[in-house]
Amino acid sequence: MEKRIITISREFGSGGRSIGKAVAERLGIPYYDKELIKQVAEKTGFDPGYIEEKGEYAPGKTFLSYFSAFTGRSDVMGGMNASDFLWVMQRKVILELAEKESCVIVGRCADYILKDRPDCFHVFVHADEEFRAERIVKLYGESDKAPRERLKDKDTRRSVNYKHFTDREWGRCQNYHLSLDSGVIGIPKCVDLIVELAGYSGEKE
Amino acid sequence: MEKRIITISREFGSGGRSIGKAVAERLGIPYYDKELIKQVAEKTGFDPGYIEEKGEYAPGKTFLSYFSAFTGRSDVMGGMNASDFLWVMQRKVILELAEKESCVIVGRCADYILKDRPDCFHVFVHADEEFRAERIVKLYGESDKAPRERLKDKDTRRSVNYKHFTDREWGRCQNYHLSLDSGVIGIPKCVDLIVELAGYSGEKE
Repeated sequence: MEKRIITISREFGSGGRSIGKAVAERLGIPYYDKELIKQVAEKTGFDPGYIEEKGEYAPGKTFLSYFSAFTGRSDVMGGMNASDFLWVMQRKVILELAEKESCVIVGRCADYILKDRPDCFHVFVHADEEFRAERIVKLYGESDKAPRERLKDKDTRRSVNYKHFTDREWGRCQNYHLSLDSGVIGIPKCVDLIVELAGYSGEKE
Repeated sequence: MEKRIITISREFGSGGRSIGKAVAERLGIPYYDKELIKQVAEKTGFDPGYIEEKGEYAPGKTFLSYFSAFTGRSDVMGGMNASDFLWVMQRKVILELAEKESCVIVGRCADYILKDRPDCFHVFVHADEEFRAERIVKLYGESDKAPRERLKDKDTRRSVNYKHFTDREWGRCQNYHLSLDSGVIGIPKCVDLIVELAGYSGEKE
């Protein structure tokens, strides 16, 4: 197999991001998350905070119309709305990164954007609500919203965003080479498995 | 983790059945497929061929109505149609097996039926059409239908059957602890992974 690029899609709170970072470290390759956002910010002029949020989550319609109407960026964006323009630029950055070097990319529909490259290994990480709710409170603290509501909100918006831009179902096994329940398998073991499989090249039958 | 029961759901032609058999052999536990059908046949009086086909695939409405109307089994089936009756009995056999012993169960919505048992490890095996089409021709020979049509037909019927009885989406990552692309990872490696993970009990965070 021997895959150069690993994409990790994940449910909120499942540890997909920590797993991605650890995999990149173990393989000695770059991990793209904040750095990807920085590159998209440079290409678009958008604020990194805006990209972080809107490049992966379905935006509210009202916000988008407001943004498009008042930014006066329609010249730069070729008549596209902000969300579509961000998708195009984010896609471009991801394709360029994959062309340039081995790396781990977390989120941002990278599994779909790179689906035609045979040198990619696509992973989905998920876990049950109890595991994830406990984990987000430990990592990000409490908020006004109940932990389970926060999970539901983020995942619904990721799923709607994914469907909108890819026309595929988010979290469908067939989109990934490997999918892992990090709550049952454990985060350290998920890291081991991805590292092992990405470099694995054994018999196929 | 240390799971006693392994359920394997699979796309047609992905090698899920061969993987299940090999896992059971390696772990020295029973593999339930034909044997499960035999037990359901004993409980229902249905023909094993009928159970093999209809216990996993969405049936044609016409066939079912015909069956219900002419078998005269409405007394035994408590007014249910043949398909619902088969589901109930199949479910009963699967629950009894899980209660009795460690085992591998392939297909038949066992992942859903046993979803509330914490001692189960649920796996989904899939692969791209090219890999599966080649494999079914090698294993089962040619037929009137093109290989890709045979794949599509079987998987659509499995998916409709699963949705009907479980109200869940077939092949959704979140239904399984592990999902594997056998075409990319390779069948022998899939066996290794399942054997390893089912017996694994390491740190979770």
